[in-house]
Amino acid sequence: MKKMIQSNEDNKHALKTQAKACGYRSKRKCKNVIPKDECGVVALYNVPSASKIAYLALYALQHRGQESAGIVTSHESRLCIKKGMGLVNEVFREESDFQILPGNSAIGHVRYSTSGGTSIENSQPLQIVYRRGSLAVAHNGNIVNALELRKNLERTGAIFHTSVDTEVLLHLLARNVGNFEDALISALSIVKGAFSLVMMSENKIILARDPNGFRPLILGKLGEGWIAASETCAFDLVGAEFIREVEPGEIIFIDESGLRSRFLAPAAHQSLCLFELIYFSRPDSFIFGNSVHEIRVKLGEKLAETHPADADVVISVPDSSNASALGYAKKAGLPFSFGLIRSHYIGRTFIEPDQKIRDFGARIKYNPVASTLKGKRVVLVDDSIVRGTTSKKIVRLIKKAGAKEVHMRIICPPWTHPCRYGIDTPSIDQLIAHNLTVDKMKKEIGVNSLEFLSVQDLFDITGNCSYCTACMDGNYPVEFSDESKIDARREDDE
Amino acid sequence: MKKMIQSNEDNKHALKTQAKACGYRSKRKCKNVIPKDECGVVALYNVPSASKIAYLALYALQHRGQESAGIVTSHESRLCIKKGMGLVNEVFREESDFQILPGNSAIGHVRYSTSGGTSIENSQPLQIVYRRGSLAVAHNGNIVNALELRKNLERTGAIFHTSVDTEVLLHLLARNVGNFEDALISALSIVKGAFSLVMMSENKIILARDPNGFRPLILGKLGEGWIAASETCAFDLVGAEFIREVEPGEIIFIDESGLRSRFLAPAAHQSLCLFELIYFSRPDSFIFGNSVHEIRVKLGEKLAETHPADADVVISVPDSSNASALGYAKKAGLPFSFGLIRSHYIGRTFIEPDQKIRDFGARIKYNPVASTLKGKRVVLVDDSIVRGTTSKKIVRLIKKAGAKEVHMRIICPPWTHPCRYGIDTPSIDQLIAHNLTVDKMKKEIGVNSLEFLSVQDLFDITGNCSYCTACMDGNYPVEFSDESKIDARREDDE
Amino acid sequence: MKKMIQSNEDNKHALKTQAKACGYRSKRKCKNVIPKDECGVVALYNVPSASKIAYLALYALQHRGQESAGIVTSHESRLCIKKGMGLVNEVFREESDFQILPGNSAIGHVRYSTSGGTSIENSQPLQIVYRRGSLAVAHNGNIVNALELRKNLERTGAIFHTSVDTEVLLHLLARNVGNFEDALISALSIVKGAFSLVMMSENKIILARDPNGFRPLILGKLGEGWIAASETCAFDLVGAEFIREVEPGEIIFIDESGLRSRFLAPAAHQSLCLFELIYFSRPDSFIFGNSVHEIRVKLGEKLAETHPADADVVISVPDSSNASALGYAKKAGLPFSFGLIRSHYIGRTFIEPDQKIRDFGARIKYNPVASTLKGKRVVLVDDSIVRGTTSKKIVRLIKKAGAKEVHMRIICPPWTHPCRYGIDTPSIDQLIAHNLTVDKMKKEIGVNSLEFLSVQDLFDITGNCSYCTACMDGNYPVEFSDESKIDARREDDE
Amino acid sequence: MKKMIQSNEDNKHALKTQAKACGYRSKRKCKNVIPKDECGVVALYNVPSASKIAYLALYALQHRGQESAGIVTSHESRLCIKKGMGLVNEVFREESDFQILPGNSAIGHVRYSTSGGTSIENSQPLQIVYRRGSLAVAHNGNIVNALELRKNLERTGAIFHTSVDTEVLLHLLARNVGNFEDALISALSIVKGAFSLVMMSENKIILARDPNGFRPLILGKLGEGWIAASETCAFDLVGAEFIREVEPGEIIFIDESGLRSRFLAPAAHQSLCLFELIYFSRPDSFIFGNSVHEIRVKLGEKLAETHPADADVVISVPDSSNASALGYAKKAGLPFSFGLIRSHYIGRTFIEPDQKIRDFGARIKYNPVASTLKGKRVVLVDDSIVRGTTSKKIVRLIKKAGAKEVHMRIICPPWTHPCRYGIDTPSIDQLIAHNLTVDKMKKEIGVNSLEFLSVQDLFDITGNCSYCTACMDGNYPVEFSDESKIDARREDDE
Repeated sequence: MKKMIQSNEDNKHALKTQAKACGYRSKRKCKNVIPKDECGVVALYNVPSASKIAYLALYALQHRGQESAGIVTSHESRLCIKKGMGLVNEVFREESDFQILPGNSAIGHVRYSTSGGTSIENSQPLQIVYRRGSLAVAHNGNIVNALELRKNLERTGAIFHTSVDTEVLLHLLARNVGNFEDALISALSIVKGAFSLVMMSENKIILARDPNGFRPLILGKLGEGWIAASETCAFDLVGAEFIREVEPGEIIFIDESGLRSRFLAPAAHQSLCLFELIYFSRPDSFIFGNSVHEIRVKLGEKLAETHPADADVVISVPDSSNASALGYAKKAGLPFSFGLIRSHYIGRTFIEPDQKIRDFGARIKYNPVASTLKGKRVVLVDDSIVRGTTSKKIVRLIKKAGAKEVHMRIICPPWTHPCRYGIDTPSIDQLIAHNLTVDKMKKEIGVNSLEFLSVQDLFDITGNCSYCTACMDGNYPVEFSDESKIDARREDDE
Repeated sequence: MKKMIQSNEDNKHALKTQAKACGYRSKRKCKNVIPKDECGVVALYNVPSASKIAYLALYALQHRGQESAGIVTSHESRLCIKKGMGLVNEVFREESDFQILPGNSAIGHVRYSTSGGTSIENSQPLQIVYRRGSLAVAHNGNIVNALELRKNLERTGAIFHTSVDTEVLLHLLARNVGNFEDALISALSIVKGAFSLVMMSENKIILARDPNGFRPLILGKLGEGWIAASETCAFDLVGAEFIREVEPGEIIFIDESGLRSRFLAPAAHQSLCLFELIYFSRPDSFIFGNSVHEIRVKLGEKLAETHPADADVVISVPDSSNASALGYAKKAGLPFSFGLIRSHYIGRTFIEPDQKIRDFGARIKYNPVASTLKGKRVVLVDDSIVRGTTSKKIVRLIKKAGAKEVHMRIICPPWTHPCRYGIDTPSIDQLIAHNLTVDKMKKEIGVNSLEFLSVQDLFDITGNCSYCTACMDGNYPVEFSDESKIDARREDDE
Repeated sequence: MKKMIQSNEDNKHALKTQAKACGYRSKRKCKNVIPKDECGVVALYNVPSASKIAYLALYALQHRGQESAGIVTSHESRLCIKKGMGLVNEVFREESDFQILPGNSAIGHVRYSTSGGTSIENSQPLQIVYRRGSLAVAHNGNIVNALELRKNLERTGAIFHTSVDTEVLLHLLARNVGNFEDALISALSIVKGAFSLVMMSENKIILARDPNGFRPLILGKLGEGWIAASETCAFDLVGAEFIREVEPGEIIFIDESGLRSRFLAPAAHQSLCLFELIYFSRPDSFIFGNSVHEIRVKLGEKLAETHPADADVVISVPDSSNASALGYAKKAGLPFSFGLIRSHYIGRTFIEPDQKIRDFGARIKYNPVASTLKGKRVVLVDDSIVRGTTSKKIVRLIKKAGAKEVHMRIICPPWTHPCRYGIDTPSIDQLIAHNLTVDKMKKEIGVNSLEFLSVQDLFDITGNCSYCTACMDGNYPVEFSDESKIDARREDDE
Repeated sequence: MKKMIQSNEDNKHALKTQAKACGYRSKRKCKNVIPKDECGVVALYNVPSASKIAYLALYALQHRGQESAGIVTSHESRLCIKKGMGLVNEVFREESDFQILPGNSAIGHVRYSTSGGTSIENSQPLQIVYRRGSLAVAHNGNIVNALELRKNLERTGAIFHTSVDTEVLLHLLARNVGNFEDALISALSIVKGAFSLVMMSENKIILARDPNGFRPLILGKLGEGWIAASETCAFDLVGAEFIREVEPGEIIFIDESGLRSRFLAPAAHQSLCLFELIYFSRPDSFIFGNSVHEIRVKLGEKLAETHPADADVVISVPDSSNASALGYAKKAGLPFSFGLIRSHYIGRTFIEPDQKIRDFGARIKYNPVASTLKGKRVVLVDDSIVRGTTSKKIVRLIKKAGAKEVHMRIICPPWTHPCRYGIDTPSIDQLIAHNLTVDKMKKEIGVNSLEFLSVQDLFDITGNCSYCTACMDGNYPVEFSDESKIDARREDDE
């Protein structure tokens, strides 16, 4: 424990140092946080016009990150890079953008848009030159001992250009004198936390998934070549064939001699991220051995069983809880309907009106359908409640549209602890479920009833217990040393 | 009839002249067509920061036009304008965009994005100076005798800066020596076709709807002032109160003495556009005395009654046929589910891959949910079939995802004739229902069964027969003189 | 005189009406002024890739206007247009910009950047459709009876889309029922003032210069085809051969039958603009039968003869008075040197520092060369003094750099009256020479002596008296009706 | 010598590795070259609104680099950064760009535009976090042993994010365990070559100039604070007071305790860059104890003495040889005149015409003044000849404009060897003076005579021999190990 305290202090120092270099993280202010982003990755080997296929795959993964996009290709023993801020479609606009990305191998990355603008310096893939040549890496997840490792590396002369946690891995890899594969295995054994990452050297693609398997990473075939991506929806768009998931702890090397695997030491338990199923992945994807859509329907059904409501209609907060609301309605024998219309034209910036428009933030995104809601007792199914502010506004809109009662049903347990493994969540004191009992939450949000699924319910539905429940019960499967500094946000909350 | 032929020839001349001046209508080629766009309009009188409220209202009407956006305000007896190509959010990005639009009155316009790019020259509102001072106008609809009138005007010395049909109206207004209101009534009596338009002079707002009432136009109150818009969803966002619809043939003048109405000669029959209910308007809007959502649910129910299917699941083509599919499922006693996931990140341009990806155009927009479709007999509810090419691709995607059977159900009759009243449709020979019987359409699209609602069904559901059915039966309620030249497109078809 | 007063009042009305529609003329405020711009024009007939050649010619004429640029081409009986705000290089950036401008005929225009931003609506060429088909026009000059004509046209039903004076000409042309050439001659006989304009119909190029010949317009051959431009420097860049100047009052029609001329009624006296030679044209151009560079050298020499100075060194305000300073130095037997370095990186916007930097506006553009100036008695040759504010700042910079004395010498008479014929000048009360005697100007500007050439000197140098001297003596060669409203600015003054 | 060969091989390896990671260096191709750029730097300490002052200073230094611009400020123990591709005015456009750069200390950098586009990854300042906290650095010069050091660093585990040579320095600094100042002195003692660099930590500004003093670095006062910049013209714009030059080998630390100096081991000889005086610096600057303008005038005078010409007029290639041409003319007793007009509207890209225009590359930049040249024997004074291609084109333009004879006079010796110390020059085989005798150069360029100053002439004029003459005689004052790979370009050559 002594050591823990020590490293806490170390981390404070490291964090402070980090913060000092944060550049213009936000138009509003610099924030004391190493980015903890949900992201999407893709890798291609031996695929003609790899950069264009990578672009399409990133487009399919756009829901996993809207802040920046980047692609690195390998061509004639050289890596070529293009990245930028914005949507995939905005960063890659013209044929000429692909002419500078020749080659049959590529990796790509999309990054989650946290509130405010983070900088191009932190966009991925990262590309470096080191003792073994060139290397590019794109990462989905969060390395929980990054600050600790970083501090040690700094102590021994390392310099850091970004605040991306993956840079730590690159240093470890560069300092190890063994051959590339051994050095990589060794480096990946040192970093702790969540990582589904794709790497590319001049002649090789590498896929790696942490032993806990927090984030998905899927392997497929495309023509004669290979493809890997965060979700299968990327395969569907480019016409690739699903082969299997990269296994927790598996490192796959793909080069001209084919594909081979090595493994990191296994984790005590796997800890797949439940929120990939509940909220983050696209419903048409197939991850962790499950159809995302199907799991969501079942969660809704379970919720109807465990927490029925005396109501007239079931509605969703579109689009993420559509399937669950449908499942709830079916099992409850209530009609499902569309009670909120979601605008799909929201851009990154929005000029606010001078005069106050009540609940403007929610209104700009959702408009209630009066004919569905008027005079009705409504079951509102949502995937989660984080800070509660958006939920409160949505409920007001629904009531103003004439709903007599609103019964809120959530397809997961109360979110009481921040995620440390790659989902951008607020600090613990901003989590409504950390601060309030369910009964007080009900009052705060203004609903007639409020119910959640339990962790056991989730295990029942997913059919096993290989999942991480840290955000619901605080049982963090991988230790981390820094408690107080985590700060993150989720899109739906303001 | 002699005259008709004459004017046809005249129109050919006019059209040719027109085409000659078309500028760079498209990146691909100049096209022989006067734009026939579905658009959205808004008007505000005595509303503080009118330009910002207009911007929000246009944002809510964005689904009615994504090509260009513009706002004109009146301030100290001066009109101020800003317009540009792109989404509302792209044209109006900064506070400074509103600083050049001071004043408490405003009109605004969004224009439909036809394929290819049309030019800034044709964007609206149009703003002119003439004998009575300044005037701005924004138009939703299509004036069917514009070419004829235009040719006559040219013959008597008029010059045209745009190919927007509304420019004809402005010339008529300018040539009439009477007072403004009489001159406007007179000019509006001469133009034929569909117009829901908003105008602004230095001290007045004018709202006008053609006697047939093709397009909606809604009147409301906002604080001390007035608001009008194409749909009520614009009112919801800015917190305005719905008062009533502008009546067919009604011209409303709003100035410091208040609001007063005058009327054009009534039409033999009203002919509200059914497609506003079926497809175009937002489901949370309330137009033509109906909740759009509710009508769509009922159309789906009717379809289930009249054309049941022996199937396992009902799905929609999101988002426009969601409500109808729900209605079908409920009435048919079949489960509704989500079978297609729609991507919301599609921008105006998309770099295509080098290698052919089958049905790429549909794939980029929709991805099937295998778990919903696999092994299932699917009812696919859609709002309409225009050229049939997109339907064919969607059906292939659904079958490839494992659906055993696809039964397509359309909530309107076959679309056999182009719209002349403001919806951008292909030429008659490109309409699949004009060329093929329903049975042959079924084979072409590749479905197991294909059924449509009848015109009478539509009348039954909407409760009256004050609707235009021209696109379904060729009974054009307002005569027009030019047959062959109409060419238009709809977003869903390629 | 009665009529004059009448038309003044009419004009006030027209002007007011005009002002009401001015849109966002400037980021700061709407201004009561019909634009009076110095501009550059080009026309091409039967020249392959006409749009690219037009682009190069406009690039060579960029000094005549930096606000907007536009090109219209004729291709297969159709006119195609592209115009935009900014430099030629900014508006036309990619090959695709020229793909939408096919054809072997073209006209183009660059517009002067007045302070603040004027709108795309007023950029040229203007393109219209009227009784005879399509027509495009680009104009350099100023029509002095535009307001009067405009008011009459409005009275008889015309509508105006822009505040460009050329729009009046288009209305006159459209209302005349004769054949095109007669109608054009007739219309050009009605408009008064300065116009060097190029027009294009589907199959014809037209060049026209007003009878006074205020602005230059040069004719040349390029391969098999024809070219016309404001200055010969445009010919040099594209390798065209100079043929002759378009004569004052000459209208040239170029079509497949070749080139033919017609003439407007001659003016009592020609009145070529002296400022084209003194300031506006590029020194490497040859206009009005003169080498611009040579004339400027001679003006400097004359100045040395008539107004010698007891000094050590002669410097210019670069680059426009370089040649004159050289001439002065040579004739005076004094060394010429470079005393001010001009920055060439000034863009349209410049963020100002928070803290006051004295004479910042002049500093950002000019930096004194101390080694040239220190301890010296300096002759500063400049082309003109308009408001005097910039001169004052420059003199302060020179003195601060160590000059003992500054003797300012101007190669034209004091500028006492606004130009009405196409140069953008301030209102009369802002002209320092209108308000102050030369002696008081000397004190205000802070120089040890201040001398000007006389009108007679200018005539002596240019070898004839066919020049306009209105801005120097108020003898306006073409009457105009509106006195008080002129407001314009020149780049060098702030 | 053994070692030399060894390190050459090492460097080949390092260079190859480097090339592999070069990213999209150019739209045309990746190039095997570590950037060797002439650049401009600025540093500010204790100056309110430091970022705005840095911006103005960079604007004044814009001639030293047009490719990218960047500023880092220090605010509340945090570094904030903004950089981008393009001119200073393009990267910093709005007040909000400065709001994210708070603080009273700043460093800034502009980078030279080599042909093609290099990437944002290599733009400066570089900003890192390392053992001592945050650090930013901006560099003008070239470290000649960067590849060697880099290879050693890679061997011991370093990773490189850029191909900027300064990154090597940062690694050396990070690996040294001493206190910051000692570590910096130590690191700067290891790197060899040319460096005038500015650094910033959270609370300190550091200025450093290599012992040879290749590049200028000037120190001044601004109000209560300090300023340093590449040239004094930056001081003039912001109203700063010149104090002195940073001495060769001097390291200056500025923090709240004031300013103090330390020194690196002195070089055997100083080797100031002659080309800063001849070509690169702005004539209004004062560097190496000289007025740039004055030196250029004297070089022209010397040239007239040593290489007179029987001619009628002396002209310059504007603007860099203006002063020298003036000096030549004066001493030779010949008239100086303006024979070439330079366009100042050239942007970074220029669409080329389809048809071949002879000498287009020179024409777009220069147009001859026929009235100056026709029938004349012309002395053309230029600052240098690199590849000779532009000279050849200019001479053709001058002859085509009617010059009878062209006598070219160059104010430096033939350029026979590439610069290794920060000026971007072509490889040795592309240097015309390396390949041809002066007599053959004369024929190749097409002039009647061609003469150069000698090294001794340069020493005579500058008054001492503390200058680098490597590019003229191959006597490289600082050894470097890699011979064959240098490739660089100069703006004037194509």
